[in-house]
Parts: sequence; structure tokens; C-alpha cells
Amino acid sequence: MNEQLLERLKSFEKSVFALGHAMGVLYYDGNTVAPKRSAIVRGETMGELSRMAYELTTGPEAVKLLEDLEAAGDSLDPVTKRKAVLMRRGFDETSCIPMGEYVEYVKLQTESMDTWKKAKETDDFDLFEPYLQKMFDFARKFALYRNPDGDPYTTMLDSFEKGLTAERCDKFFGDLKKRLVPIAKKAAEKSKTIDDSPINGCFPVEKQRILSDYLMDVIGLDKDRCTLGETEHPFTDEFSKYDVRITTHYYENMPAASMYSVIHEGGHALYELGTADELAFTNLGRGVSMAIHESQSRFYENIIGRSEAFCELILPKIKEIFAPQLADVGAREFFRMVTKVQPSLIRTEADEVTYCLHIMIRYELEKKMIAGEIRAKDLPGEWKRLYKEYLGIDVPTDREGVLQDMHWSDGNIGYFPSYAIGSAYGAQYLREMQKEFDVREAVRTGNIGKINSWLEEKIWRHGSMIDPCELFESICGPLDANVFADYLENKYC
Amino acid sequence: MNEQLLERLKSFEKSVFALGHAMGVLYYDGNTVAPKRSAIVRGETMGELSRMAYELTTGPEAVKLLEDLEAAGDSLDPVTKRKAVLMRRGFDETSCIPMGEYVEYVKLQTESMDTWKKAKETDDFDLFEPYLQKMFDFARKFALYRNPDGDPYTTMLDSFEKGLTAERCDKFFGDLKKRLVPIAKKAAEKSKTIDDSPINGCFPVEKQRILSDYLMDVIGLDKDRCTLGETEHPFTDEFSKYDVRITTHYYENMPAASMYSVIHEGGHALYELGTADELAFTNLGRGVSMAIHESQSRFYENIIGRSEAFCELILPKIKEIFAPQLADVGAREFFRMVTKVQPSLIRTEADEVTYCLHIMIRYELEKKMIAGEIRAKDLPGEWKRLYKEYLGIDVPTDREGVLQDMHWSDGNIGYFPSYAIGSAYGAQYLREMQKEFDVREAVRTGNIGKINSWLEEKIWRHGSMIDPCELFESICGPLDANVFADYLENKYC
Repeated sequence: MNEQLLERLKSFEKSVFALGHAMGVLYYDGNTVAPKRSAIVRGETMGELSRMAYELTTGPEAVKLLEDLEAAGDSLDPVTKRKAVLMRRGFDETSCIPMGEYVEYVKLQTESMDTWKKAKETDDFDLFEPYLQKMFDFARKFALYRNPDGDPYTTMLDSFEKGLTAERCDKFFGDLKKRLVPIAKKAAEKSKTIDDSPINGCFPVEKQRILSDYLMDVIGLDKDRCTLGETEHPFTDEFSKYDVRITTHYYENMPAASMYSVIHEGGHALYELGTADELAFTNLGRGVSMAIHESQSRFYENIIGRSEAFCELILPKIKEIFAPQLADVGAREFFRMVTKVQPSLIRTEADEVTYCLHIMIRYELEKKMIAGEIRAKDLPGEWKRLYKEYLGIDVPTDREGVLQDMHWSDGNIGYFPSYAIGSAYGAQYLREMQKEFDVREAVRTGNIGKINSWLEEKIWRHGSMIDPCELFESICGPLDANVFADYLENKYC
Repeated sequence: MNEQLLERLKSFEKSVFALGHAMGVLYYDGNTVAPKRSAIVRGETMGELSRMAYELTTGPEAVKLLEDLEAAGDSLDPVTKRKAVLMRRGFDETSCIPMGEYVEYVKLQTESMDTWKKAKETDDFDLFEPYLQKMFDFARKFALYRNPDGDPYTTMLDSFEKGLTAERCDKFFGDLKKRLVPIAKKAAEKSKTIDDSPINGCFPVEKQRILSDYLMDVIGLDKDRCTLGETEHPFTDEFSKYDVRITTHYYENMPAASMYSVIHEGGHALYELGTADELAFTNLGRGVSMAIHESQSRFYENIIGRSEAFCELILPKIKEIFAPQLADVGAREFFRMVTKVQPSLIRTEADEVTYCLHIMIRYELEKKMIAGEIRAKDLPGEWKRLYKEYLGIDVPTDREGVLQDMHWSDGNIGYFPSYAIGSAYGAQYLREMQKEFDVREAVRTGNIGKINSWLEEKIWRHGSMIDPCELFESICGPLDANVFADYLENKYC
């Protein structure tokens, strides 16, 4: 009886996977090599494939399958049982949205992304403004479909991070802000003596590409299953544990930007590549939430990548690649340069300390947008006001301001808090890891595999088997902004 | 009444287009940037999407739509009427194949391509042999499903070139062979005095990439709708007239190889990009047949690209890119180098004269494979025997022999004759074009647009509106191997 049911599930999973895989590749291709004018056509195709996916996952066969799985209850193995739980959640999330609106949304997503790219290139916020407003409108409307009585922003947070609420977020950011503001001030003051001009010269892109390739090896990415592309804004796109794409952007005068984006996206990729085999191609075969995902990427980028031990490890190779540049720079000096704290305009290139202030600004603005307190047209002004308030700096252009991130253009509203929570998670992993082995020594000796194994065992292999808060707490206990603040204070003050 | 019918057609076309678009992008991505181990997963996804496409195009709704269109008959506009004709052909071609076998075939295709790549890399025919045999077996079986009483090889030819038969092919190749063998002999003899060592030095790939970009501009490719990628074997992949991909392969010591592959694939791309707007995203929105397609690519590659006028046009830029290399080479000399005739191993790099002898070898082998007179394991030996017989040369490895082309690995059996017929078509276009304007002068002065407009008007814009033989004959009269032979004799003897 169950055998037949499992066969039906398998065949269903295959179709869902194929449509998702196709959309993933279309997205990746569209952001890397596709010709400009293809965007509209791609939007149409994405819309059509989404319609098929919608029909597939909300149609009568899917409903029957889900009901049969739920009826089978405890006679199912734990993996199948969990699949049914996530199917039910996905079904409830999707089926409440009228299909026409869903398809319209997916099409708009592609156009919005395309327009954002153009607007950023030409520093033209007005061009993007109507799309941005529409993306927020859709997000709010969908959240209300999903939970008509709930706070829409909490509903959005919950879809990225099961169990997260605006209230818990407020508390976390409140605790963090108290500690972070003085730490940032002190760290910035201390950083004033750091001369990072040696890493802001001219570093040919061709050589930076060689460095990227080396860094992928250092952190243990399997290149037979993971490749690196080039995009305006770096991202990771995973189709399965056999095919993960990371991307970066090269700036000739800022090699650290690409270097740390490769390590950041590499962290996302390691998580996906480390999912257990038996979960592949199913709804359990990927990272469980955005904060857990960002906790991997930010951990590799900052806790590993911006440690003195890591600088010692990679500096000889860096010198070899860029010779004769950097010949006189020592590991300690290099470490100080890549950990220089300085309020700045661009989130992705921000230092580890002020980074979360960038997130708080976005968090505040998202909430206000969803609450209807401000509209898209107000964002450039609000952005400037908050950058002055939180970071003490003036934002000269929208290109370096509200147009810098791709997230909102892509409809990822409620995503930004994941970066801050993920960063905080990382500090708690480090504390736990230290109890078992000397992390600094593992990094210094190039034994990143030891760290990878720890994370694989505790997090990666589980895919989406365990809800994020439960998963995190089972490893580290409750989220505590103070552990993160202690880590920063210790490192930077 | 018809309005509703047209709406149903439109919605059907949208779904068919989306699945085809997705499979096209997966194919392109898989051949350019995808990580190695992704091949098997991509095969699964392609299989699943093909299944969906199969169900969509052969399912009850499609049948009803087709019947309704056919019933509407003369009340339909000519474009819609033609769509129904091609739908019927496609339906008859597909629906006769059991779905399980079709899906198995599409999955095998991806694996076969992947294995071919590995086998070519390592010169290991044995690795590829079982896949090759299976691809031929499938092709034969499918041909017999399609036309149980017909000659299977003719059925295959017909699917690439409506109306082409093994008999007509035999006649064409027979006529051509009679003229070509003495021409090739004389041209090779005459070529012995040509020293082409200046274009076989070391030409950095980075600079060759700049040349490719320039060549795309010269022949008038719209880069907002067409991009260039890099693959082992160059190909063109078209998703719509808004998104065409061409690829090339760079050899440091052979810049002409990539140069002419860009022009060749560029010819394919121009054809697709030139389809009329109103045919886009439908079954009429692409080139009508392989021979008409190859007649574009071979025309641009050889009749334009390997003309003395074209050499005059582009040599200054070539010298600028590769300076100080080639500084002493004149246009006449350059022209002689790129038209040097010499029996050689690799089809895609063969000169214009011996090229069709390469095709005849493949034609002969395909026919024997399908007739069951030989099997895949016999191909390396047969290949060597025929290269000795037709071209007088020894084939040292399978990598330079039977493993060189991707076509069979991809199931394109019955395709090769299109290259020779396409080449012959080109010579007849030239004759017709000359009646209207001085083609040589247009090329010399960089006015390729004049040639593009002629082809766009007569061929490109029609997409698949007119069957290939009818289309060709309406422009040039019947196919005549002697016009092609005259052209070659005049140019090379």
C-alpha cells in the first residue's frame, strides 16, 4: 500500500524538481550570459513554467497525494513524513494565491529585475520606482492571502525563517543595537590608523579570477559540482547538490570585494553541496532557511575569511598571483586591512561590524513599506536619512543607495534580517566548535575540512529535515545577540 | 467562433514555447558553463520536460485543437493555416512513438553527449561505442514508427529536410562527386605553393575573443539579441528571435578556426534573428530546415567570409588586434591562406573544396549504419578506410576521426547531407544576388547589410511559412550541383 504511495510521491517530486531546475537555470543564465533583449521573453517563459508548477502542486492529484500521505501518518518513515509536512506548508502558502496573480507576479519579477539592473546602471531611481512599489504591493497582498489576520511583515519573515516574528526581530535588533553602536564607534576610531591603500591599487581582473579559483579550493568547494560565474550582484543559485552556481563581481581597484564575495557565496554553496544524498531532488534537499543559509555564508566570509589565521594561510598565494604587488605586506597587516572598520555606503562591501547597521536600515524601511507608512517614491529620501542617522554618512547617489541591492527587485522582502541573524548564529557556532577543537589552528594550517565536517554533520546533511530554530537551538542553545557582540568586541576593540 | 479558437491556439503555443525555451537554455548552459557532474541530473530534467511537452502536444486537448483548426480550414488566415499543417506533421511524428521510449531517448541524449565529450577528450572510442549504437538504434526505430513501409534513412532525411529522399541525395552526391574529385585534386596541387604559416603562429585567445566580437559586428549580428559562448564544438542554439546563442572554440595556434566558426554560426543566427515578428514564439518562428539553415551558415562562412573582398575588409582590424603579428601580410596573401586547399582530418576546419568529401563519408556511413550493414564498433575502421579512399589521408586517432563531430552523439542522424546541400544552395544564391547588385563590391565596402537584406527578404522573414524545397526553388530554380561546382572551379582552379 505505502509502496504505491511512495511511487506516486517520487513521480510527483520528479516533475516538481524538473520545473524548479529549469526555472533556476533560466534565472542563472539570465543573470550571467543571456543577451539583453531576452529578458521579456524569459519573463514569459518563467510565468508559464510557474503556472505549470502551480497547477502541479495545487492540482487535484497533488491534493490527493498530500491527503494520502497525511492519512498514512506514522506508518511513513521520518523522511517521507517530513516531506508531507513541508508539502502541506508549501500547498497552504501557494494555493491561497489566485493563479492569475501568481503568474503575473512571477512575470513581473523578471521585468523588475531587468529594470533594476538598468536603473542601477544609469542611476535612475524613477525608472525602477513603479516596479519596486508593485513588488512591495504583491508581497503585502500575498502575505494577507496567507494569513489574513496576521501582521503581514511577520508572515513574510516566517516564509524565509519559520517561526521568526517582527516582535522577536525587534528584540534581537534592539539588543544588538545597544551593543553594536558603541562597538562600531570604538572600532572605527581604532581603524583610523590602518592604511589599506596597498589592497586598493590596480589588481587585474584576470588575476582576480585566478584568486577566486584558488579560494574555491581552499574552502573545499567541489568544482565538479559547483562553478563560478560573473554578475552585477553576486548570488548563489542551487539546482541540486550536484549543481550549484556561485557568482561574483570584479572591481579592478578592490580585489577584497570579489575575494570575500566568493567566500560568502562559497559558504552558501557548501551548505547545499553537503545535503545528504537521500534528500536530493526532493523538497528536503536544500538549505532549510535563509538565516541558516546566511549563517553559513557569513561564517565563512567573516569568522573564517576575515580571521588572522586565514590571512596567514592565503597571503603567500595572493602574493604569488599578484606579484610584485603586496610583496611587502605581512599577514598581520593584511588582516588589519581586511578588518578595517569604517562606515560606508555599500552593504556587501561593509566591514563585519557596521554590516548589521546596514541591515537595520533595510529592516526599518521594509517594515514601514509593508505597514504603508511610506511608499516606494519615499525610499531614496528615507534611505539617505537613515544612513546619516545610523552610519553618519551622506549618500551621494541612488546607485550607491537604495538601488544597490537586488533583493527587493526580486521580491525578497523580509529577507534582510536573515543576514544579521545569520551573522549572530555564526558567532555561536564558533563558540561551540571551539569546545571541540582549535578552530584558529585548523584555519592556519589549511585544515578547513575539519570545520566543513563539523558543519556538515550538524547542519548541512540535514537539508530541510529540521525547522531552523529547532536546528540552531539543538546545536547552540537560544539565539543571543550578546554572544555575537562579545565576538565583535573581542575582535575589533 | 474563430476568435476563441485562436485564443486556444495562442495559449497552447505559449506552453509549447516555454518548455522548448527551458530545454534550450538547459542544453546551452550544459554545454557552456554547467559543472561536470550536473549532466546526469540535467538528463533527468530534460527527460521530464520532454514528457510534459509530449503530453502537451499529443494529449487530448492538442488533438481537439488541431482537429478544430483543420475543420476551420479556409476561414483561417494563411499563417494560422500553416501552423496547423506543421502541428499535424509534428503530431504525426511524435504521437507514433510510445511515450516511455521517447522520454528514454531524450534522457539518453544527454548522457550520450556527455559520454561523447569524455570519449573525445580521452580518445576512448570504446567508452562511447554503446551510446553511439543506441542512438542509431533509436533513430532507426523511430523512423520505422513514423513510416513503417518507407526506407528509414529517407524518413530521417525528410525530418531534417522536408521532401529530401535517399534517392535524391544519391543523385546530388553522385553529380557533385564527379566534378568535385578533379577540382579538389587540381586545387590542392595549386595550393602547394601557399605558405599559411603566418596564420598558424601563436594568437592569444584573449585577442581572438576581441576578433570574434568584431566579426559579429561586421556581419551585422544584433548583440542585444545574440551572444557568443565557448564550447568544445561550436553550435547555435536559438530560443526565439530575441535570444540566439552562438558558440565557438579557440585554438591558440589556429585563429582561422574560431574566426570562421563565428561567421558560420553567425549565419545561422542571422537567419533566426531575421524571422518576422508575427511568427515569433510559434511553430513558424524558426528556420524551416537544416539545409536552408546550413545554406546561410556556409554562405557567410565561405562565399562571403572566404572571399578576397572580405579579406580586404577585415585585414586592417585583424592586424590591429594581433599587432605586431601579420603586419607584412597583404589581403591577397591572406585570402590565399584562408582558401588553401588541402585534404585534412577535421571537417569543421576543412577547406571549402574538400569539405563536401568529409560530408560524403559521413553520408555513406550513416546509410550503412541504418541499413544494418555495419555497427558502431565498425565505425572507426570504416572511417579510416573512407578517409584514405576519398581524401587520401591516414586517420591517426579516433579523436581526430569518428569522435570529432557531436551530431551522432546528439541523435542528429540524417543531418550531415544538409551541409553539402546547403553549400550548394549558397552558390545558387550568389548567382541570383549578382543579378541584382555587385556582391563583391558590397563586401569590400563593408556593406554586408545589403546582403543581409536580400536574404532577409527572400528567406529569413518567412520562418517556417514555406517548405524548404519550394522556398529554395522559388528563389533559385532547382538544386543543381553544377552551379556549385562551377563556383568552386572558378574560385580555386
